[in-house]
Amino acid sequence: WASPGAEAAPQTPNIVLLLMDDMGWGDLGVNGEPSRETPNLDRMAAEGMLFPDFYTANPLCSPSRAALLTGRLPIRNGFYTTNGHARNAYTPQEVVGGIQDSEFLLPELLKKAGYVNKIVGKWHMGHRPQFHPLKHGFDEWFGSPNCHFGPYDNKARPNIPVYRNWEMVGRFYEDFPINLKTGEANLTQIYLKEAMDFIKQQAYKQPFFLYWAVDATHAPVYASKAFLGTSQRGRYGDAVREIDDSIGKILKLLQDLGIQENTFVFFTSDNGAALISAPSQGGSNAPFLCGKETTFEGGMREPAIAWWPGHISAGQVSHQLGNVMDLFTTSLSLAGLQPPGDREIDGIDLLPAITQGKLIDRPIFYYRGNEMMAIRVGLYKAHYWTWSNSWEEFSEGVDFCPGQNVSGVTTHNQEKHTELPLLFHLGRDPGEKYPISVSSPEYQAALHRISPIVEEHEKTMIPAAPQLNVCNPAVMNWAPPGCEKLGKCLSPPESTPKKCFWPH
Amino acid sequence: WASPGAEAAPQTPNIVLLLMDDMGWGDLGVNGEPSRETPNLDRMAAEGMLFPDFYTANPLCSPSRAALLTGRLPIRNGFYTTNGHARNAYTPQEVVGGIQDSEFLLPELLKKAGYVNKIVGKWHMGHRPQFHPLKHGFDEWFGSPNCHFGPYDNKARPNIPVYRNWEMVGRFYEDFPINLKTGEANLTQIYLKEAMDFIKQQAYKQPFFLYWAVDATHAPVYASKAFLGTSQRGRYGDAVREIDDSIGKILKLLQDLGIQENTFVFFTSDNGAALISAPSQGGSNAPFLCGKETTFEGGMREPAIAWWPGHISAGQVSHQLGNVMDLFTTSLSLAGLQPPGDREIDGIDLLPAITQGKLIDRPIFYYRGNEMMAIRVGLYKAHYWTWSNSWEEFSEGVDFCPGQNVSGVTTHNQEKHTELPLLFHLGRDPGEKYPISVSSPEYQAALHRISPIVEEHEKTMIPAAPQLNVCNPAVMNWAPPGCEKLGKCLSPPESTPKKCFWPH
Ligand SMILES: [Ca+2]
Ligand SMILES: [Ca+2]
Repeated sequence: WASPGAEAAPQTPNIVLLLMDDMGWGDLGVNGEPSRETPNLDRMAAEGMLFPDFYTANPLCSPSRAALLTGRLPIRNGFYTTNGHARNAYTPQEVVGGIQDSEFLLPELLKKAGYVNKIVGKWHMGHRPQFHPLKHGFDEWFGSPNCHFGPYDNKARPNIPVYRNWEMVGRFYEDFPINLKTGEANLTQIYLKEAMDFIKQQAYKQPFFLYWAVDATHAPVYASKAFLGTSQRGRYGDAVREIDDSIGKILKLLQDLGIQENTFVFFTSDNGAALISAPSQGGSNAPFLCGKETTFEGGMREPAIAWWPGHISAGQVSHQLGNVMDLFTTSLSLAGLQPPGDREIDGIDLLPAITQGKLIDRPIFYYRGNEMMAIRVGLYKAHYWTWSNSWEEFSEGVDFCPGQNVSGVTTHNQEKHTELPLLFHLGRDPGEKYPISVSSPEYQAALHRISPIVEEHEKTMIPAAPQLNVCNPAVMNWAPPGCEKLGKCLSPPESTPKKCFWPH
Repeated sequence: WASPGAEAAPQTPNIVLLLMDDMGWGDLGVNGEPSRETPNLDRMAAEGMLFPDFYTANPLCSPSRAALLTGRLPIRNGFYTTNGHARNAYTPQEVVGGIQDSEFLLPELLKKAGYVNKIVGKWHMGHRPQFHPLKHGFDEWFGSPNCHFGPYDNKARPNIPVYRNWEMVGRFYEDFPINLKTGEANLTQIYLKEAMDFIKQQAYKQPFFLYWAVDATHAPVYASKAFLGTSQRGRYGDAVREIDDSIGKILKLLQDLGIQENTFVFFTSDNGAALISAPSQGGSNAPFLCGKETTFEGGMREPAIAWWPGHISAGQVSHQLGNVMDLFTTSLSLAGLQPPGDREIDGIDLLPAITQGKLIDRPIFYYRGNEMMAIRVGLYKAHYWTWSNSWEEFSEGVDFCPGQNVSGVTTHNQEKHTELPLLFHLGRDPGEKYPISVSSPEYQAALHRISPIVEEHEKTMIPAAPQLNVCNPAVMNWAPPGCEKLGKCLSPPESTPKKCFWPH
């Protein structure tokens, strides 16, 4: 590995994935957020390549993250449920399942090329011992296995632990305070320091993979004192500003260390803005329909920027259809590795798009649980199923599409359109408001192109065993490794496994 | 006046106003339009100053334009109606009224400082002889007095004339074809050439004022052959692309002539995107609520960019609350002139914001016809009246808020909230979806600030006589000056003046 300034043979580049939690496409100034409070991300885009057509594999945290790190749709890697049709499932602490050993995770594979791998922040791929990130290729971890919900009473429900590597070092709301009233927490600053220290440690040694999975923009949103109250956008905006500031510092560190041309940085989010938490705790999906939990554009389209000075020329916009799963394949490609040949990989190598401006023809599949709800091919999106959430939930005030109501589209029943899919042109109609008439030549032509792709997809799809079906209060974070040193072990209740209930 | 390269004393700068028709805030790449098809406007913003908080004075063409050129609210300059409460009125060719001689128009005043003034495109401030732009300070005109609706039969209704200076030179759909089927028309190219020729003609002579009021983005939208079918966004996008390309050419000409540092250029639009014409003929208001015709943000907030190399440093964003009426006062300021002292002027001088980054505290008033519907003070917007359109119209398919429905806000009755205004925080909630609770301290504090401003405004408001109340088929464009030379004079019907009907 080259020391700074030394002449060296081309190296496999470092990889930094900056993964946001529930941040929306419309939260970036460069994507039109009116307050323009992301100068560092806007500069990152101006110096790199912006992807306005980038997607997640699932509109919820856990399956999105599992897809990113395996390069596979959740229905292939097991991060879904069959407890109900088209229901989103994730990994709250009562879930029994998690990432299977049979899956190859990106850090596991990168190790073969000598990478040192660190995850900072939220893991969310299972909190039980066998799912621990250090068992799946990461060398270091600072962060939590689950969302920072709480505080809990440590009786019916334990507070979520924070780990350093193999062992817990405390719990949220106890050792890592989050003030729900003021919104104050210094977690982003801690996560920033973890990233900076790791980058400095690895800068001139082995190549590194940093997976920076911060969660300040996931409700309950938080920011440290220096950022609280500084945004036009309220508390959510304060969280965005602190993350933006942190990203500016990370990019500057790479430049100060002189390793920016040898570090591929990618910024994106795990799912669309959580409009259920808006306006004070949720972000913006700009012109797109609905948000998190849905397979409308607002749930699935993500902000995305690639930054790699010397390799990506400044100020580019790529209309390549991209997906978080591509970060798996692209990262392997950067490391000179091939994706596993023994299984279906859904992610594609984006390097031709990123470094040569090529456009690779590929569809985007929009899954919700065990159902392919929609597909995008070119500028057309066909919905085979539509659902926002149930009438029962909606009548209780749970609204994934606040202020929006597109007749026959944002449905509160699960509507099947497999015979005559609802078709939209996302160029003319990014907001999915104007279904194209089924009797039009345009509809016929588009379906003629889309149908064989769907048929092929369905024909070859072999779902994995669903990992998110069983819940059990006994598996919660009662006594994580390291708890005894801290005197923070709690007694689990009796084991009572049952089907998890996923309301939407 | 200085010749190129010659040393010269500071001159009053040329002024170029690029006024779009029905273009939405969200139609610019720099404001987040996903297709990113406005590279020239995006570059203009990158080289200049972007205003995300810029407004029109009225969500409809004619009153907006009258406000821009007089610096006064339509209720002060007469561009409104009292035929109904809070109804939008404009200048179709049967309208009897137009701009009054008692109003001072910007070009009239600029003449005192030696400016040569040209309007290219749509006038829309009255089509009868006394309202002619050359009677109100313009030295040259190429364009039409009304919208390019048609074709008409020249019996019940004449086609709209196109003027060069004092006389008509043809009619739309006859001598200036617009193909409604294909969308082809070369008008933007003609308007571009008119602008370029005028700039070249004036470059080293007297200072000039160019008011470039193109209308390709107003339904029926059009583009020339070279641009048709080139946008991801359909025909509307083709129109945007051609205008963007033209603006690139205008800015380049200023640079090629070496007069860019002596030419102040401002880009904006007359009202929000016309969602009634979307998706194929209407634009985008991005995260904002509803569109043209309404006093929600989508109807009133406009894209806006100031460009003046050497005076405005590159890449700035100003959160100054701006209004098209400010272009009147700012232009006078640039010309070293004072606004008229004998009347209320609503526009402010934006130069301190533009050249020194100052923020000037001022409210934005949202009028619809004879009613102040809402006000913005700081980040708060208070609605005193809400109305999208009537149930009757809505049930016939006229929808100013397609796919959007905010309970109690996008009302189909005229709802009065003067006792307890509906309050929104536009920073947290740019989409006006979450009214702030009237019982909250935040509501009380905001209203405490807003109420005195509204009271003062109402106390001092003396409405002008409404000019848009009377319609008469006899006043249509039957026999405009110059028609005899072309053999295009038509016979007017009998005079039958009656109240204009304004449905919304
Ligand atoms: Ca998430
Ligand atoms: Ca207009």
